[in-house]
Order: sequence, then C-alpha cells, then structure tokens
Amino acid sequence: MVEAPETAEGWYALHDFRTIDWDAWRDAPERERERALEEAAAFLEHREALARSDEGDSATFSVLGHEADLLFVHFRPTLDELNRIERSFEGTAFAEYTERSYSYVSVTEVSGYVSDDYFEDPESVDDGLRRYIEGKLTPEIPEDTYVSFYPMSKRRRPEQNWYDLSFEERADLMAGHGDLGREYAGKISQVIASSVGLDDWEWGVTLFGDDPTDIKDIVYEMRFDEASSKYGEFGSFYVGRRFPPADLPAFMAG
Amino acid sequence: MVEAPETAEGWYALHDFRTIDWDAWRDAPERERERALEEAAAFLEHREALARSDEGDSATFSVLGHEADLLFVHFRPTLDELNRIERSFEGTAFAEYTERSYSYVSVTEVSGYVSDDYFEDPESVDDGLRRYIEGKLTPEIPEDTYVSFYPMSKRRRPEQNWYDLSFEERADLMAGHGDLGREYAGKISQVIASSVGLDDWEWGVTLFGDDPTDIKDIVYEMRFDEASSKYGEFGSFYVGRRFPPADLPAFMAG
Amino acid sequence: MVEAPETAEGWYALHDFRTIDWDAWRDAPERERERALEEAAAFLEHREALARSDEGDSATFSVLGHEADLLFVHFRPTLDELNRIERSFEGTAFAEYTERSYSYVSVTEVSGYVSDDYFEDPESVDDGLRRYIEGKLTPEIPEDTYVSFYPMSKRRRPEQNWYDLSFEERADLMAGHGDLGREYAGKISQVIASSVGLDDWEWGVTLFGDDPTDIKDIVYEMRFDEASSKYGEFGSFYVGRRFPPADLPAFMAG
Amino acid sequence: MVEAPETAEGWYALHDFRTIDWDAWRDAPERERERALEEAAAFLEHREALARSDEGDSATFSVLGHEADLLFVHFRPTLDELNRIERSFEGTAFAEYTERSYSYVSVTEVSGYVSDDYFEDPESVDDGLRRYIEGKLTPEIPEDTYVSFYPMSKRRRPEQNWYDLSFEERADLMAGHGDLGREYAGKISQVIASSVGLDDWEWGVTLFGDDPTDIKDIVYEMRFDEASSKYGEFGSFYVGRRFPPADLPAFMAG
Amino acid sequence: MVEAPETAEGWYALHDFRTIDWDAWRDAPERERERALEEAAAFLEHREALARSDEGDSATFSVLGHEADLLFVHFRPTLDELNRIERSFEGTAFAEYTERSYSYVSVTEVSGYVSDDYFEDPESVDDGLRRYIEGKLTPEIPEDTYVSFYPMSKRRRPEQNWYDLSFEERADLMAGHGDLGREYAGKISQVIASSVGLDDWEWGVTLFGDDPTDIKDIVYEMRFDEASSKYGEFGSFYVGRRFPPADLPAFMAG
Repeated sequence: MVEAPETAEGWYALHDFRTIDWDAWRDAPERERERALEEAAAFLEHREALARSDEGDSATFSVLGHEADLLFVHFRPTLDELNRIERSFEGTAFAEYTERSYSYVSVTEVSGYVSDDYFEDPESVDDGLRRYIEGKLTPEIPEDTYVSFYPMSKRRRPEQNWYDLSFEERADLMAGHGDLGREYAGKISQVIASSVGLDDWEWGVTLFGDDPTDIKDIVYEMRFDEASSKYGEFGSFYVGRRFPPADLPAFMAG
Repeated sequence: MVEAPETAEGWYALHDFRTIDWDAWRDAPERERERALEEAAAFLEHREALARSDEGDSATFSVLGHEADLLFVHFRPTLDELNRIERSFEGTAFAEYTERSYSYVSVTEVSGYVSDDYFEDPESVDDGLRRYIEGKLTPEIPEDTYVSFYPMSKRRRPEQNWYDLSFEERADLMAGHGDLGREYAGKISQVIASSVGLDDWEWGVTLFGDDPTDIKDIVYEMRFDEASSKYGEFGSFYVGRRFPPADLPAFMAG
Repeated sequence: MVEAPETAEGWYALHDFRTIDWDAWRDAPERERERALEEAAAFLEHREALARSDEGDSATFSVLGHEADLLFVHFRPTLDELNRIERSFEGTAFAEYTERSYSYVSVTEVSGYVSDDYFEDPESVDDGLRRYIEGKLTPEIPEDTYVSFYPMSKRRRPEQNWYDLSFEERADLMAGHGDLGREYAGKISQVIASSVGLDDWEWGVTLFGDDPTDIKDIVYEMRFDEASSKYGEFGSFYVGRRFPPADLPAFMAG
Repeated sequence: MVEAPETAEGWYALHDFRTIDWDAWRDAPERERERALEEAAAFLEHREALARSDEGDSATFSVLGHEADLLFVHFRPTLDELNRIERSFEGTAFAEYTERSYSYVSVTEVSGYVSDDYFEDPESVDDGLRRYIEGKLTPEIPEDTYVSFYPMSKRRRPEQNWYDLSFEERADLMAGHGDLGREYAGKISQVIASSVGLDDWEWGVTLFGDDPTDIKDIVYEMRFDEASSKYGEFGSFYVGRRFPPADLPAFMAG
Repeated sequence: MVEAPETAEGWYALHDFRTIDWDAWRDAPERERERALEEAAAFLEHREALARSDEGDSATFSVLGHEADLLFVHFRPTLDELNRIERSFEGTAFAEYTERSYSYVSVTEVSGYVSDDYFEDPESVDDGLRRYIEGKLTPEIPEDTYVSFYPMSKRRRPEQNWYDLSFEERADLMAGHGDLGREYAGKISQVIASSVGLDDWEWGVTLFGDDPTDIKDIVYEMRFDEASSKYGEFGSFYVGRRFPPADLPAFMAG
C-alpha cells in the first residue's frame, strides 16, 4: 500500500444552494414579503458578522442558471454549528420561499504534499508558510467577488489511478498544480475542503475572483495539467456573485 | 504539461429552457392570460431590441419534446446582466405559467487553435480574420431560424485524452473540424461558448440554420471527424425554432 | 477522417409519451370526463385521418409499465407541424389528465449503406429498391399492432469505435444487420429515424409487430450481431399496443 | 456473427411497484379507508384466484425501503391482460393512496443453453426435463415467501462481451451457473423472464425463498461465477415478503 | 470459478433517511406540533429502549446537507420487524412532516476472510475472537457520536475484478484493510452489513466516531489501500450526529 499524505483540518464548510419559489413569492402579500426579507437579512447579517470575530465566515451569493438562485457559504469550527445554521434558517419566514436544491459538506484541509516539514513540526517552517497554511484552514471570503464551486474526486481507473501512485509522484503532480495556481495569485483565491466520508465526492473546491473569465481560465488551464487531465473527475459547476444581505430586497425584486 | 491554448472571450451567454404549465394556463381567466402575454411579449421585445444597439442579443424559440417548450437565448457583455435578466423575468405574470427545466451558462470564446497570430497581436491579422473572430465573440442571432443547442466536453480517458495531446495535435484536429464546418457556410452558423468553471460541461454549442436536416447533417458528419469520434463527449440535444415575441399569443394558443 | 455515409431524409417523427393522472381522472365529474374523452378522440382521429392523404401518419398506443400509459406517434413532413401538434394537444380538456413523461424527436433516414447507387442517381435503381427506400422515409403505421420504441447510438470507445471504422466495414456490418432484419419480414416492420442534433441519442427505432415475442426475438438475435454487440448502445425500451381513438373511453375505463 | 440461442416463451410478467401516500391515508376518513381496503382486497383476491385455474398467477408483497411499499407480481398468458390489470387497478379507490415508483415488463423464457434437444423436439426429452422447462414458463408463486427482484443485462465491453462468445462458451458458463442454482434447490426458486425489446434491461430475475439470508447467499455466491463476475450487469434490487390480500388492512395499519 | 467466502449473518439493518417538510412544520398550529413531537419521541424512545434487552438497537441522527435531515438506524433480528417499524412510523402524526429521501436494507455479516476457523467450528476459536465476531453481528450504537453511512460494491472490471481474485488474494487484501481499521480502534467503530440481493449496492458501511475528522481520516487512508483503490466502488456519503429522542423538540426548533 502506498503512503497516504498527512492532513491538517480547519473549519468545516457548508455550501447551501437554494432555488427561489418565485410563484409563492409573486403571490405573497406585501407585508409577508417585507417581514420575510427583514428576517432573512437579519439572519444572514448575523452569520456574516462572525467573520469579524474569527469564529468562521459566511457569505451570500446570487447564482446563475436553473440549479440554484442563492448560495449560502458557511465556514465554522464545528460540524454542529453548521447543522444548527441550516436548521435555524428553516425557522425564518423567508425559508418558505426557498427550496434546497443542492448542498455540500466538507472540512478545509491542507495535506502533506504542501509541506512535509509542517506536519513534522509546525514550528520548524517559516512564518510565511505557516500563515499560508493557516489561511487555508480558516479562510476569509472576499467582499465583492464571483464564486465558482465544484466537487471533485481523484480517479481510480486501471491506467489512471491516483491512489496507486507513490507519495513522491503525487507530491510532484500537486506541486505542478500549485505552481499553476500561483500564476493566478491576486486574481483567484481558492478554498480546498475534503469531503471524504462526509459527502459524495472527495473534495469541494471554491474559487473566488473579481472577473469570471479568470475563473474559466484557471480551471481550463489546470485541466491540461496531469493532476487533472489524467486523475481529476469533476461534478457540477455553480457560478454566482456575492451580495451583502442588505441587498436581498433588491435581489428578490429582479 | 502540454500547452493550453490562449483564449479570447466575448459576450456571456444564458440559455434559459422552460416548460409551460399547461394545466395552469388552461385554468387561467382570459384577463389573466392577456395580461401575462402582454407583459411577457413586452419583456422579450425589450430584450431583443438590444440587438440593434450592440449591447448583446436575445431571442425566443419554440422547443420540441418534453424537456422544454420555450428557450430564451441571451448574449450580454457581463454575467451580471444575465443574472438580472433571469430574475426580472420571474417578476412577470407570464413566469407563473413556466418552469425552468434546464439552463446553460457560458462565455463566447475563440482559442489559439484558430489563429496564433491574433493572440500575439490582433492588429497583425487581416481584417477578414479579425472580423470573423469578433463575430464569434459578439454573435447575432438570425431572424427566422431553427436552433440546436447541446453541451459538450473533451474526453480524458486513457487512450482518448484530449488534454494529453500536444498543442499541434489539437490544432490539427481543430483545423480539420473547422474545414468541415466551413462546408456548411451559408447553411449553418454556430456559436461556441466555454463553460469551464461556469457550468457542468466544457462548452455549449448553439447551431442556427434554416433547415433542420442541415443541423442533423453537420453534427452527423462531424461525428466521424477524429476531434469528435475520439475526443467528443456530448450532453442532451435541444431543437427549436425562433419566433418573434409578438407571436407569443399564437404560440400559447397551440 | 473516415467517410460519412450519404443520407436521405423523409418525415419528421415525434414520439410523445404520457402518463395518466389517474387521481385527477377518478375525481373528475362524469360530464368533464365525457367532454375530455370526446375532445381527445376527435383530436386523435383528426390526426390519424391524415394517413389517408399522404401528409403523414399518427397513431395512439397503450403503453405498459410505470414510465408511460399512452404513446402518440406522429410522422409529418415538417418539424413545425410536430411542434403545432404537441402544443394543440395541450389545448384539449383531456390533456389536463396527462403528463408528459418522455418524448423523442427524429427524422426518418435512409443512408448510403443501403444503396450507394440510389444516392448517386435515384433513377438508376430498380423500382423495388426505390419503393423500399421511399417506404422507409414515409412510413405507414400498421392497424392492429404492438410497438416497441427505443433510442440508440453507436459507440465511440477505444476498441469499439463505430465512427472510426472505414465506410466499407460499416457497410458490411449494416448489411449483416439488414439480412437479419429481413428474416423477420412479414412479422416485424421497423422505422429508423435519425436524432443526431435533434435529441439525446443518435437514432430512434420503432418496431411494429403482431406478436410481442417477435419483437423480443428480433432485438435479442440482433444483439449477437457485431453491429450491435460491439457498437450498439441502447436507451430505454417502451412497449405498447395500438388502439383506435374511438376506444379511448374503454382505455380510460380500465 | 455468433449463434443466438433458441428460446421458448411462456407467461408475460408485470412487476408493479407502488409507494403508499401515507399523508393522504392518514387524512382519509375512516369510511373512505374501509371502502378502499375492501375494493383493493377484492381486486387482489380476484387476481390471485386465477392461480387455481392455470391462467396465470398473481401475488402481493410488502416491500422494504423507500423505493416501494407494495409489489404486485402478475403472470399472464398475454401482454394485453397485464395492460388491463394495471389500468383496472387504477379504477379502485385504493389506487388513490398509491403511486407507481417502478415497474418491469418481461416474458418468461427458457433458452437453448438448458437443452438443445428440447428445442429440436420437445417430445424427445424426458418427462422430468419437460416438466422442469414448462414449470419455468408458467411459474407458480409460493405462499409464504420472501421475494427479491432485480433486472440484469449481459455486458458487451471489449474484454467482457457476452454477445461475442461462442454458443459453446455461453452454454458452459450457463451450465456452471445452473449447477450453482441447483445447490439452493428447495430453498430458493427463481423465475427468469426476458425483457429484451420490452423494458430497460435484458432480463428480470425474481427469487423466492423462506429465508432472506438464502437470497443474499445465492446472489453473493453467483457473483463469483464467471457468468456474473465477468458478464453480469445488475440494476436495482428490491426485497419484500408476500402477504394475502385479506391482510391488507393490517399492512396499512402499520 | 473462484471460491466464495463463508459468511455468518446477524441482525438486519434499516437505514431510514428523511427530510423535514419545513413549510408544513412552520404552518402547523402549536398544538399539532406538540402532539407530533410527543408521538415521535415516544415512538423513537420505545425503539431505542430495545437496546437494553438484546433484541436489537435503534438510534436517531441529525443529518447535514440537503439529502436528509434525519436518519433512523434500526438493527433487528428479522426483516419483518424492520418492515413493521417503517410502516408503524408512518402511523405517527410526526411522519406527516417528513418525507423519505433514501433508505438502505442490509444484514450484518462476518465473512471467512476474518477467520476460517470460526466457520469450521465456532468453538475452536478463542473467546476474544468469538466475542469480536458476535459484536459485529449484533452491534450496539454508541451514545454520543457522529455517524457516516455509505453503500459500496466491489468492482468487476477487466483489470480490477474482485470476484475474479483467488480466495487467498482477497483474504490478504481484507487483512491489510483490517489492520488499517485497527489503527483507529477506540476512535472509530464500524458496522458492515451485506445488501447483496437486498438493496442496490453490495454492502452498507456505518462508521461511528466522536470526531468527524477521524471519519474523514479513516476513509481517506483506506482509499490508498488496494482493496479500495483498485476494487472499491462507493455510493453517496451521509454524515450526521446522534441525539436522544427527547431532544427532538430542540432539533425541530432549529
């Protein structure tokens, strides 16, 4: 058996995708709508306020296409907090106008491919690397940004079996992948979270960027990289744009 | 790692497929119907009027089969405009009689396989090529036309891995593909838009033509071309015919 | 690139599968039911009457199993006529008691594998062959018959790539397939219609026969033929029996 | 082309899976429920009574899991009878509390792998074999029994292509399979029915036994047999237990 | 044909996944809610009380993500008891606020890979091993714990065919797998139950642990083990946390 990488885990992540029940919304009396919008905005603002207290982060996105209208992203130190958030949202009047169309449960992860030394002794690595790794484990969501989310796994086919490669081969491939990612530094930031044992694919990838063509470009370029071209298997892709909870009324007004 | 092609992007595209809720429509009072039709026709005409001002294009199609009754195609300079269009349509009374059955988000793309020179210096290529490329990035939708839409990806299997071919091999295959397409010049026009990072497949292909058998013929002939026969993976196909928004009442009357 | 076959196209085909909403039907007042049955029978009879005027053919089938209760098959010279038929059916009172569960859009096709000569000069082939080909393009639906419908494609896998075979290899395989089909002459008639660019598979196959075991036998025997065993990929199969529109009340009565 | 086996067909089979609409049932007035139960019990008893007259057999099963609550199995000499049964069930008041979640249409089949001689001349084989074959074609459903139903096909992959094996190879593999089955004689009885051309897989397999672990054991053991391990492709599995129609009220009471 | 392992079976298992109908819950009058909660808590407590009497075990979990809100796990000596539990739950007022989204039917299993001797003569093995095996067949669910459930099968592909390996090869691979599992002793306990012939995959795996990252770690590490990397095929993963039935009101309050 080949060697599995060591891993460090940070915040748990919930990606909560919802469609709007526009028929119900259109038919709702004005007063009901106002109350629903107030409750939802308060709920979302309260969640996002956490970002300032280092206990996680939350954000709301407007999603394109028929699979979802809204995406709520929540990062929290425990799975239990995520569980409470999804249930308490259902207690708001606004929830009546939404239906869950997809979700993803994962935990931010940094693995030994990035730095063997860090896993032997976190104090042995320089501050920059340590801050980099810790930033990956407790990510902040940029203010005005586009998001792309997709789940992925590594293949286990006869000639394309990631889990059959030696640690060194995998580390080399991940290093090449990382170099490519760094070319997009300043344009794209990404959150990698493992969902092994937690959800249907092995990882959830969340990309943030100011220009959606940068999102397209990085994913396209990486697809030519062996780590993806031979070993990557991808699920559905969702694209959206962040908006502040206070803009929910404008969002619902079309 | 093999070389990824350079790409240029133009308008973003939203393909918005909807089924009609015929039961609700049959039961709606005549006055409700009339109001719904007026609102929808006004909404669609307003969107299509843009075509005259170079800020995008929009069109409405009657789709065959159970997967959709209507297709709205929108091309716009930003993703945000597409997002607003899909939400503002939900504000019309007509939206109550429709349900979204599918959608596709992409961005028109020309890649380095077409012309290396253009990507080095757009001024270095002749006017004809430049206009060709720019026409691909800001496409116009023909007036009276059939449409065929399908999403597709390139394969990454052991013996059929597009992303493992050298740039030259890919450029050769794409050139052959392009030659075949040119044999249908005047009969079929196509819009290629990348959805890498944006939607579930890598590209969305939209074909326009006056005769649906030309659509069948070009797709069939191309399937024998190596770029498709070895490397193409195709999603669902949708076929429809454009009609002017003013004909929506006739469309709904059966 | 290997050579694509020439093709001739005839009538467009719509296979329209519907489930009955038995709960709504059970609850409907007797008068509503009667009106619905009358409207539907008139609608269907009108469509079938066309068969006598060489402008197409239509038939109604009772389908077994949960995926559909009814199948309407329509052959027409244009896609627009099929589009109108599906929408005008929605205008009948009976449509309220049905839901579309599946459909298939295609166009009858004869290809160069059958006869190279016909495609060079239709006049050069003998009357029998010409009538055979024309019968394939403008098919009549037998009166009292079972139907089996299924969509199919040809494989494009590394060792089973139909689109990578030479024209001669494909023509040989199709000839063997045709010989097998002829052994069922008088028992089974079939309509082959291309859906390349029009629907999700490459062809729709409709078999008609007086005995459902003949349907099973021909499909089973053909599965051992290389054209199917190596290169065929099949979708869902639907089986039903034709009944005259006038028998719709009996059909609905159980 | 390799040789297809000869086949003999017997009764047609309909496996009709239904979920209970428990919300509607809970809300129904006592009198409605009683009437529904009486109608359904009478309907089912009438169908099962046929078993005594050699015109088929019918049975009702309580199914585990979310995919179905009830399974009705019907064997009949013609497809038309099955068609009538499924429609006439919809006429009962009880049908309102059920929804069809799955179904399977097939015809009992014995093939030339079992006995070449029988197909040349049924009189040439001994009485035991002839009775065995006829029992397979007109099966009886045991009284108090567990059932497992699953659809299956034979693979047509490059290195695992059943339809590319010689008749002798297939006959050998089927003989080994049959030997294994005979080890469970007295514990498990099975009905094999072809659905080629009739439904989505090639066969429907129905196993009956007094102990569900025998069902698990035979399917597990057979999976190691080459006929399954290399060539078998399996659909969903459903497990349930037979109960007499008179126990329907107890079944619905929980 | 290679040798199938001997197996011993214990309790049958039902994993019953349900989503909450939050809209109906929000709209229900306070008195209805209270009654529903009382009935459900009593129902669940009654089921869990069995654990103390060695006749099975039951537990309730709060599940993350859109695919389910609640998971009820039931282990019982017979399939009939599981069948009664699922139907009698439908008789509670609380069931009206839930919908079944998934389920899994299986039977706990220990196979000859673990100990040949035990299957020859259970008395011949030492008490520790016997208790270990019996604990696997009649599992207890830990009190305060996270759960991960997923179904899986072994592959039967040309180069990755588990069912084509010799018994010794399979036993070696399973031994390596077991060693890995033992490294998580005290942190993760697992229940393996066969669903061959009973449900859609070959086994259901249920992991229990106090820390969800241990769940991720064991599944991830095992994926590098040949038994998984080459031969494992996995379905959907569900993660949740146990709570006592008395906490159902708190759970529903968000």
